[in-house]
Amino acid sequence: MPRAPFDWIDGATERRERAGLVRVLRSRAADQDLLDLASNDYLGLTRHPAVTRGAADAALRWGAGSTGSRLVTGTTALHTELEEALARFCGFEAALVFSSGYAANLAALTALGERDALIVSDAGNHASIVDGCRLSRAQTEVVPHADPEAVRKALDAHDGPALAVSDSVFSVDGDAAPLPELAAACREFGAALVVDDAHGLGVLGEGGRGGLHAAGLAGADDVVATLTLSKSLGSQGGAVLGPARVIQHLVNAARTFIFDTGLAPAAVGGALAALRLIEAEPERAGRARAVAAELHGRLTAAGLQAARPDAAVVSVRAPSPEQAVAWAADCRGAGLAVGCFRPPSVPDGISRLRLTARADLTQDQVQWAVDTILRTAPTA
Amino acid sequence: MPRAPFDWIDGATERRERAGLVRVLRSRAADQDLLDLASNDYLGLTRHPAVTRGAADAALRWGAGSTGSRLVTGTTALHTELEEALARFCGFEAALVFSSGYAANLAALTALGERDALIVSDAGNHASIVDGCRLSRAQTEVVPHADPEAVRKALDAHDGPALAVSDSVFSVDGDAAPLPELAAACREFGAALVVDDAHGLGVLGEGGRGGLHAAGLAGADDVVATLTLSKSLGSQGGAVLGPARVIQHLVNAARTFIFDTGLAPAAVGGALAALRLIEAEPERAGRARAVAAELHGRLTAAGLQAARPDAAVVSVRAPSPEQAVAWAADCRGAGLAVGCFRPPSVPDGISRLRLTARADLTQDQVQWAVDTILRTAPTA
Repeated sequence: MPRAPFDWIDGATERRERAGLVRVLRSRAADQDLLDLASNDYLGLTRHPAVTRGAADAALRWGAGSTGSRLVTGTTALHTELEEALARFCGFEAALVFSSGYAANLAALTALGERDALIVSDAGNHASIVDGCRLSRAQTEVVPHADPEAVRKALDAHDGPALAVSDSVFSVDGDAAPLPELAAACREFGAALVVDDAHGLGVLGEGGRGGLHAAGLAGADDVVATLTLSKSLGSQGGAVLGPARVIQHLVNAARTFIFDTGLAPAAVGGALAALRLIEAEPERAGRARAVAAELHGRLTAAGLQAARPDAAVVSVRAPSPEQAVAWAADCRGAGLAVGCFRPPSVPDGISRLRLTARADLTQDQVQWAVDTILRTAPTA
Repeated sequence: MPRAPFDWIDGATERRERAGLVRVLRSRAADQDLLDLASNDYLGLTRHPAVTRGAADAALRWGAGSTGSRLVTGTTALHTELEEALARFCGFEAALVFSSGYAANLAALTALGERDALIVSDAGNHASIVDGCRLSRAQTEVVPHADPEAVRKALDAHDGPALAVSDSVFSVDGDAAPLPELAAACREFGAALVVDDAHGLGVLGEGGRGGLHAAGLAGADDVVATLTLSKSLGSQGGAVLGPARVIQHLVNAARTFIFDTGLAPAAVGGALAALRLIEAEPERAGRARAVAAELHGRLTAAGLQAARPDAAVVSVRAPSPEQAVAWAADCRGAGLAVGCFRPPSVPDGISRLRLTARADLTQDQVQWAVDTILRTAPTA
């Protein structure tokens, strides 16, 4: 008697239910009446009229899709314009746009992590970096979070090409990586440094040029950045920035570039419009950081536990996964959308509310958000 | 003296140059004056006014981006509407939309290929399937192309959960997989069947319902489909279709779903508009297949070698990689864009021109394309 192929899924679902860890998709309405502190729309640009207009115009002019691989028909002049603008803004020689930040990380790590190479990866790195390491032919060594000395030791023990990879800002706790120290460790051993600046672009550095620019590492011949277009740029997609020869190598070797359909023109147009806004209004980055500092200051002054934010993410500890879920639901009931991170999405097992310090929040909104979070906080 | 980290790339570039295999990005203009037989826009919908309007309106109404993971803020009511429409049209219980077909394949194979499982994969499968197999914790056995008996043998030799995975239509040669025979082999051993219908959706089956629908396998409790929204639907993104419990499992377990930003509203709106057009005008699928048959018939009657097309891809053999490149360039010079596949993008080392039989080509355009391909063909 043959097995029914998917019967095993019921067991996995039951285990999730018993652990209270079932994830449910909830769709939102276009006009939902919630104050959003849950998204990654750090600069509040995704619904900015210039950005939605940029996306809409690109769809009308270029089509709803790019029609093929970037290497066949999927590269429009708009893609090239965005790549040049991204490289210039962030201070790199060249850029390459992907359909997602996930695809950009897979591309960078598989194309740069050759068979005899070592990849040294921070334990807190994003899932797409972890998957990039696994897909690469390189050997991967995972080192403790934000520990340049551990990176040094791993590089010292390896003979052959190597790279270290880290998020610039970690999404769960909002803390920044020690980029200058990581770069120094890499340079001591002739290793490359790959940094995912998804949560730094638009928030860190002069006018939002990102974490690598802030650390004086943008454009260095041994540094590669990966980005998303879906956070501060309010759109969709990802990019890899670096020396021109690295970008040319990705064009020829990165499977998630070669065998993927090019990013849709609307996403390209939206990101380009957002980038032009950020260049024209460089104060947005500082405003996002100031809102984060204010949220953190008021919440910790009232007795909550939160890591000091290095960018635009404020992470507030919850006593348990159940209480985190109830807290987020109570905020939602009051009209405030907050993120809720719990196992297995958190590396340390600690559940949190995750707050996005959007640059476009008014003083009144910040005050109301703080009051709401405090009013709904679990009693210890 | 430390090494310079990326010096090794120069050697890789030199080897590519010596082999004549350097890939160069060429951007196209919005109003380029070429007849397109190179894209995957099988139904000619990517620039259809209803589809570009659907994309533009979605960006204006919902924003340029989805703002976060599908599990946090990235699911709009438009995503849910598209998922319901896709499942209904293709005949499956449920659907889940991803930012790319690449991400959809990674999700299906990693979430369904557990540690003790076997994945039996066709040697001609798309790169995203190959990468999905590698990222999964399952054991993978690659079997010869389109060989159900080899699948049977692999499944027979394995004790434990198993699945077979295949493209429904292979992109390089345009040939269809033997889906009924694959399903029979899987059912004999209680294995699941996962089929990437990227090149079948919109072209095969009643009104374009896809290769699985054509084979009577849509909606079966042991069958999962993956799709792209970037080919017949003229937009961007991917999807997984299958039993509701499989889709729920992906929501909870697929890393390229959980840790990726949701598909941009414009791409969702474009795909939804295209799907409604296909439902309203079901003759498009048959027209694409008829154009393919006509291209194949005329080119082979004139002495060229081409595989009989099972869908909308016509693949014409070239004597060498160099002659394939020159042939495609001569077509381009005459005003015809054709795809050019050569090593290492072809599994068998044979270079080809790849022609897309778009449903919206007129008789005059087909005739002119045939004349142009014949006039520029290399002399043997």
